[in-house]
Amino acid sequence: MLGPNNYGKAEVRVLRVDRGADKHEIADLNVSVALSGDLAATHLTGENDNVLPTDTQKNTVYAFARDGIGSPESFGLRLARHFVDSQPSIERARIGIEKYAWDQNDRHSFARAGDVVDTTAVTYDGTTAWVVAGLTGLVLLNTTNSEFSGFIVDRYTTLAPTTDRILATSVDAEWRYSVDDADWPALREFARQALVGKFVTTYSYSLQQTLYQMGQAVLDEVPEVAEVRLSLPNRHHFLVDLAPFGLDNPGEVYFPADRPYGLIEGTVLREGAPPPGLAWSLRSGE
Amino acid sequence: MLGPNNYGKAEVRVLRVDRGADKHEIADLNVSVALSGDLAATHLTGENDNVLPTDTQKNTVYAFARDGIGSPESFGLRLARHFVDSQPSIERARIGIEKYAWDQNDRHSFARAGDVVDTTAVTYDGTTAWVVAGLTGLVLLNTTNSEFSGFIVDRYTTLAPTTDRILATSVDAEWRYSVDDADWPALREFARQALVGKFVTTYSYSLQQTLYQMGQAVLDEVPEVAEVRLSLPNRHHFLVDLAPFGLDNPGEVYFPADRPYGLIEGTVLREGAPPPGLAWSLRSGE
Amino acid sequence: MLGPNNYGKAEVRVLRVDRGADKHEIADLNVSVALSGDLAATHLTGENDNVLPTDTQKNTVYAFARDGIGSPESFGLRLARHFVDSQPSIERARIGIEKYAWDQNDRHSFARAGDVVDTTAVTYDGTTAWVVAGLTGLVLLNTTNSEFSGFIVDRYTTLAPTTDRILATSVDAEWRYSVDDADWPALREFARQALVGKFVTTYSYSLQQTLYQMGQAVLDEVPEVAEVRLSLPNRHHFLVDLAPFGLDNPGEVYFPADRPYGLIEGTVLREGAPPPGLAWSLRSGE
Amino acid sequence: MLGPNNYGKAEVRVLRVDRGADKHEIADLNVSVALSGDLAATHLTGENDNVLPTDTQKNTVYAFARDGIGSPESFGLRLARHFVDSQPSIERARIGIEKYAWDQNDRHSFARAGDVVDTTAVTYDGTTAWVVAGLTGLVLLNTTNSEFSGFIVDRYTTLAPTTDRILATSVDAEWRYSVDDADWPALREFARQALVGKFVTTYSYSLQQTLYQMGQAVLDEVPEVAEVRLSLPNRHHFLVDLAPFGLDNPGEVYFPADRPYGLIEGTVLREGAPPPGLAWSLRSGE
Repeated sequence: MLGPNNYGKAEVRVLRVDRGADKHEIADLNVSVALSGDLAATHLTGENDNVLPTDTQKNTVYAFARDGIGSPESFGLRLARHFVDSQPSIERARIGIEKYAWDQNDRHSFARAGDVVDTTAVTYDGTTAWVVAGLTGLVLLNTTNSEFSGFIVDRYTTLAPTTDRILATSVDAEWRYSVDDADWPALREFARQALVGKFVTTYSYSLQQTLYQMGQAVLDEVPEVAEVRLSLPNRHHFLVDLAPFGLDNPGEVYFPADRPYGLIEGTVLREGAPPPGLAWSLRSGE
Repeated sequence: MLGPNNYGKAEVRVLRVDRGADKHEIADLNVSVALSGDLAATHLTGENDNVLPTDTQKNTVYAFARDGIGSPESFGLRLARHFVDSQPSIERARIGIEKYAWDQNDRHSFARAGDVVDTTAVTYDGTTAWVVAGLTGLVLLNTTNSEFSGFIVDRYTTLAPTTDRILATSVDAEWRYSVDDADWPALREFARQALVGKFVTTYSYSLQQTLYQMGQAVLDEVPEVAEVRLSLPNRHHFLVDLAPFGLDNPGEVYFPADRPYGLIEGTVLREGAPPPGLAWSLRSGE
Repeated sequence: MLGPNNYGKAEVRVLRVDRGADKHEIADLNVSVALSGDLAATHLTGENDNVLPTDTQKNTVYAFARDGIGSPESFGLRLARHFVDSQPSIERARIGIEKYAWDQNDRHSFARAGDVVDTTAVTYDGTTAWVVAGLTGLVLLNTTNSEFSGFIVDRYTTLAPTTDRILATSVDAEWRYSVDDADWPALREFARQALVGKFVTTYSYSLQQTLYQMGQAVLDEVPEVAEVRLSLPNRHHFLVDLAPFGLDNPGEVYFPADRPYGLIEGTVLREGAPPPGLAWSLRSGE
Repeated sequence: MLGPNNYGKAEVRVLRVDRGADKHEIADLNVSVALSGDLAATHLTGENDNVLPTDTQKNTVYAFARDGIGSPESFGLRLARHFVDSQPSIERARIGIEKYAWDQNDRHSFARAGDVVDTTAVTYDGTTAWVVAGLTGLVLLNTTNSEFSGFIVDRYTTLAPTTDRILATSVDAEWRYSVDDADWPALREFARQALVGKFVTTYSYSLQQTLYQMGQAVLDEVPEVAEVRLSLPNRHHFLVDLAPFGLDNPGEVYFPADRPYGLIEGTVLREGAPPPGLAWSLRSGE
């Protein structure tokens, strides 16, 4: 029995140049299309009458970029609506977009601006459009104002409580909007500032607490956000024991470990927020 | 408002050596623990009374490995049950395991056997245990017996139909069992053989059709499997145009492209299968 | 016959925190040690009398970090001199350091500042110390002022000449100093500015020309530099053909390709510069 | 002053299918071309009269693949000779090739066979051709027969001597031939077997000793090899201390660490071997 399914072209890289008289501007995107609908035939018999080729999806991304990109949210909305509204067999579309940041050196010259990536996921079912924005790869570190104590101690516990540790993480965040039309760049910037600002100012008793504070800050600062999902790896920095060498180590020399790492994941919801619908997945039951 | 959340230690690497008289055996795992339960306090106030530290979770993995590992499925079940049954605040546990394959050179010597990774995810809620097995990184390629034609043609379509193309993919598969006790290694091997065997023998009219055949084969060969989820990137191999150099190219020289790629994802369900419960996620509504 | 050899501890990660009253400062390094010398015995017979364990090398990095790190160049010099001067069997040491950049959010809070990595390689042979600085991962792009024409045309040439293309690269640069004591951070910053500034302002007829201009700029701006080595991948951006969709494409929509890519590598030397000695390798003949 | 330089197309991916009546065969390569010669003009003035475009180099790889690939060594020799012999301005060519391994499932069906990659580097200067073969990513592990003791102890040494440890590495090997015509696949297989066989059977007192034994074995088994270069990371497996949990750990439960790692690099030379010439680099002085 065929269950939920989708298909599409993933990772269509596109660079759009706007050649203004005074200066050029660029948008550098990685666009992934996923479609679902009346697709049983291609699975069961290989009849492709209802299949819009993934190659065509790629072409569509480039053709639509010709008219300008604007924000990734609005570009995703245009693409998602096009696929569903133009093809009877396509009932749902999800457009995932990564946007890479560039600094402008000069009129026509640019430098990549770090490895934080702005993410967008737009889903459309012919009636409703859901917009999720986010970011990934934002690495933050506090050298103090982080404790961890009062936890369960069982047979396997060797961790000592601490009243001062380094707290470091790489923020993966996604926030779901309750609107499908907005000043997307402004909202994104407010959300980003809320996340960073709250990480900086929170005196942390657990990374869970920091996570909740960060999510709540986005809800507080951006009324259009209904829900925030955060995934925060705890990038452990262990104080090195220098006593064997006759040295103390008053919070100065740390070993940043690769693996294993703590992983803290959580959702902060606005009370009375609309249900998520297909915001998080093309699969309706999920 | 705090929504679904979980925390745990991710990517605990463990190598277990069984030093038999005749030969040594090794199990090489990457274990990730995720726990959820009565954890509002640590999020809202930073009180950690209900938190079993992720460091303790790591220690537990190593201590349990001392008693032997067996299959990743059984090791995951032991760990998941331990965390929930021993800690009142922990209501659900999910143990994800990657297992790396090694060939045995000699009594005590081994060589890594490729980059196919066996995956396992066990979830337990105090009453029920769900077991999902899978594999990732299995790269398969057919040099013929693959067509693609009869698809939708719209304004943006430039793809020509083809009656003979290379079909290549990297299989990511997960299958959900309807049992929580079984000869896990045997079932895994049956499933793997079903996936590979059906990829080899299917004359393909679309990658979706191949996907469905592969999923169905697992259900046919392994009665204990209720559901198969497959994610198959279409690793495009484009025939190189050699005409500018005065050469023909009768299906001989191909350019394997990196990006973009088609991505085909689908589920094949056994009719009358039990509902998935928490098999796919700690979040019950998903 | 045993030829050139070296050994050491690679990728010792260290974070150093300086906890000033007004603000904290951090240095985030990845340190690799390579030593060579009178090491035939351990290769030929397994006698380790002359071997300083790589574990001890790691400990030494942490112990030396306790006294402060300063610039990676000075930290590398301290370490290299220590290993050679304290161990009779160690005749040469090479310390490779990657330094990761952080922005300061607040008194004690930081955010990773992109993926450009500052590199350093210090070599010492008991008498002379060579210092090489560099950077990797600096991605630059010009939307115009780049041509490519007048090249050789042979049987296999299909490329059309162009008078306006996108020029993009990821700069890997290393420059060798003729001094072993200097204001290292200042020189590094001058070199970086020279590289970026010249990429921005050069009207390019080939990436080779841009490379040479960039190298020459470093020599012009930093008298202490004797030699610059650059490795510049040509990150091709292909103009997408939108004609099949009835659209023109006046330099607006590009496909950034992954592979293959051009790779341009070259050296720019100051006339009369001292010979490189061991600056580029522990192997003297190289 | 312009120093050594080269340019070329890197990472040209090519899949060649031989469609025999009984079964198909495939060769899956990643080819990188680097050329040097009379190229001052393009660096100094941007005049490209002497530049064979990297795009043409890519086309040449595909056109030559039309005539069959054979071994990577012979394919590299054909390409290297073509570029130098057909272009007056090109004085030296270096062809680097990675070859990916596939198992044959059936007449026309294949599965990727692990992540060991066969490497080849062919250099040609118009007169002489040098051939270097190698492999990368061969991960080997012995559960016993490895000691490490008798080393230097200084102020920073905390490592305890051990008479039984796990020895694991990921072999990167390159061997230089003294011939430019041979049964390349057979020699490669002999070399590979020598490396693996000697790792298995050597009782190791240091990884340096194992390295030397492995290199010597290649020289012993393959008379055509003049020199072997090995780079062996010491993939540390630390015995986990289970005493806090009331458990012993008699060589059973290990933590495989990511970083830092030991790195042992060395060369084993045949006495009387011919000098390397350009075998290792296009730069003659290196």
